[in-house]
Amino acid sequence: MLHGNAIIGQSGGPTSVINASLCGIIQQCLAQKAVGKTLGMRFGIEGFMRGDVIDLGRESPSVIESLRITPSSALGSCRHKLKDADFPRILEMLKKYDIHYCFLIGGNDTMDTIHRVEQYCRGQGYELIGVGVPKTVDNDLCGTDHTPGFGSAARYVALSVKQAGVLARDMKYVDQYVIFQTVGRSAGWLPAAGALAKTAEDDAPHIILLPERAFDRDRFLADVKRCYERYGWCSIVCGEGVCYADGTPISASTITDKFANVEFGAMGGTSAAMMLHRMIHAAYGWRGEFQVCESLQMCAADRTSPGDVEEAYACGRRAVELALGGTSGVMVSIVRQAGAPYRWSLGTALLAEVALGAKPMPDEYINAEGNFVTAACIEYLEPLVGPLPEYGRLAGVPA
Amino acid sequence: MLHGNAIIGQSGGPTSVINASLCGIIQQCLAQKAVGKTLGMRFGIEGFMRGDVIDLGRESPSVIESLRITPSSALGSCRHKLKDADFPRILEMLKKYDIHYCFLIGGNDTMDTIHRVEQYCRGQGYELIGVGVPKTVDNDLCGTDHTPGFGSAARYVALSVKQAGVLARDMKYVDQYVIFQTVGRSAGWLPAAGALAKTAEDDAPHIILLPERAFDRDRFLADVKRCYERYGWCSIVCGEGVCYADGTPISASTITDKFANVEFGAMGGTSAAMMLHRMIHAAYGWRGEFQVCESLQMCAADRTSPGDVEEAYACGRRAVELALGGTSGVMVSIVRQAGAPYRWSLGTALLAEVALGAKPMPDEYINAEGNFVTAACIEYLEPLVGPLPEYGRLAGVPA
Repeated sequence: MLHGNAIIGQSGGPTSVINASLCGIIQQCLAQKAVGKTLGMRFGIEGFMRGDVIDLGRESPSVIESLRITPSSALGSCRHKLKDADFPRILEMLKKYDIHYCFLIGGNDTMDTIHRVEQYCRGQGYELIGVGVPKTVDNDLCGTDHTPGFGSAARYVALSVKQAGVLARDMKYVDQYVIFQTVGRSAGWLPAAGALAKTAEDDAPHIILLPERAFDRDRFLADVKRCYERYGWCSIVCGEGVCYADGTPISASTITDKFANVEFGAMGGTSAAMMLHRMIHAAYGWRGEFQVCESLQMCAADRTSPGDVEEAYACGRRAVELALGGTSGVMVSIVRQAGAPYRWSLGTALLAEVALGAKPMPDEYINAEGNFVTAACIEYLEPLVGPLPEYGRLAGVPA
Repeated sequence: MLHGNAIIGQSGGPTSVINASLCGIIQQCLAQKAVGKTLGMRFGIEGFMRGDVIDLGRESPSVIESLRITPSSALGSCRHKLKDADFPRILEMLKKYDIHYCFLIGGNDTMDTIHRVEQYCRGQGYELIGVGVPKTVDNDLCGTDHTPGFGSAARYVALSVKQAGVLARDMKYVDQYVIFQTVGRSAGWLPAAGALAKTAEDDAPHIILLPERAFDRDRFLADVKRCYERYGWCSIVCGEGVCYADGTPISASTITDKFANVEFGAMGGTSAAMMLHRMIHAAYGWRGEFQVCESLQMCAADRTSPGDVEEAYACGRRAVELALGGTSGVMVSIVRQAGAPYRWSLGTALLAEVALGAKPMPDEYINAEGNFVTAACIEYLEPLVGPLPEYGRLAGVPA
């Protein structure tokens, strides 16, 4: 068994449960004789290159345990696109701290980072075992049934859409529509989760706009009008990255970040929901509101899905078991057993394959009209989000 | 004791606990012999005039009980500015349904409605006992220490600011600021509640913009820069209705509703937070995000403050006790006993006085710089919001 120090890092956007994975890795590392020191890189690989390394063995066990319920990335995060020129510095730091185990928690950019670092080290004759732990609220990682962090963000979306839907129905003579915007860039998993809010036919949401389907303004406005005529109000959930057929985002933002991803809401200075709001108001003169919660859906620790916390923690522990067993170049994955009730186990996916790209929603999860999800999608989502509260509704017997 | 039927209505914007008040009124009415039928007006006084009246005695007791945890306005709500021409129709409906007890749950516009209806009936020789039950997330009702609904909305704000603050600190090398916009129009109570998120000096929020203080762009940008230089990031909470010294809203919206209130966020097609975001980005080129949750903070039933639910329910029951005792023309109020720990009891305020106007935050709750709240304000707010979760924070001992 390889002896040496271990380092842990977090990168990309946070989730409500990424620290549960961190907790699992730290606790498991501290229990291993083969692992010398358990180190943490502050602010991801960028901080590591700056030499911002901390000794996690000197944290109090109660603080480590409290990470299980702490949102965001306790080590600090970054969004660094690894350049070839970075490798010598990274190797220098690995040698300096005698690090032979590396655990990174993140999405596909992070899996790409760990994969390339591991390959570089191998080429340089430096032994490094690298294992990835998945996280992203977007649920767009390949090689795993779903990603830790998604279920909790999806729960935030479903709760918000449900509660705002109850409100919108009660206020239908004042406001005629409500639009909830989710994060998730090019993947529709989070807007899809809004569908879990629906129990009765007239419940929110009525329309779900997914980035997997091209936006058609006229069809959308006709859908909204149809809902208004049927229910007296309309609830719309939209992904931040919904685009027209030519690929132009409806948020009309043209700013891109350094991964060449288009920036929505945050830096575009506008948002998809606001543009929909303006469209409806201009077409029909109705009143309504748009809700842009941004990263709040990625850090609502009081709204985590219990299963999500458990899986995130288990993924962290398993990463250490795999590494100590000599496995490198993989990401821990979650495997779902077919059928109900929901049962899961842990597996592995090759980092090289995970790093390749984002996983969109499959066609069979989207309805023919492209404006809602299917029963198969609901079935997939339900166990990840957990049961939602049931609210009272008056029968309303005329006096 | 006056015998007759009772009617209950809800109006104005909903809260997470207005249905707890409704539950209290219904349960107490159903237990009284002097009350014949317990009726509900759908969609407020507007629905009542249309004849949309339901028999609440025919609802199942379990549905009535479930209202305690159901957000929004189960009877439906409206925003109707009562006209003199409405009175004959209202009296006609009161007579038709033999209604002699009227309970309306709402804010100052609602208290004005019940006050004027009661006066009109008296002038017409029709006996009507009218009692108001306070509600508004804005906490700007006169005659009561605070309003049911505020504590829960304030809890939503404090939780959101706290969680987004943890995230922003962990992401400070990616994004440099986060802006959370609250509802609350001309009252700063909700943005002030963001201050409860702060435990350590560098915790969010760093700046609170209150509608009670004029916005100065240069001073604001200097404050943001100072925070950035001190912490590496900046958390800002702003009320939707913050204005420049000349009274122009920073959201630059000029649309007004039928009460001549300026419309923020929802219909203005822009928002205060977005304008602040653009200002900061233009001045410093930093990345950041704005969060506009709108009515989500008014209906998050999973984030209610336990004390708020209890008080809302008690206010509903007390309204019936007062009415049955022959008291009319009052609103139930919450009286806070001086000193700690927090203790409350119920009192009354005259509808005529409550209807007069909105209660701003007192000067002693706002700091001298006008960019944060004072310890006295925190002391006022804490018991209404309840304890917030504590999250783990690594000591970060360098390796």
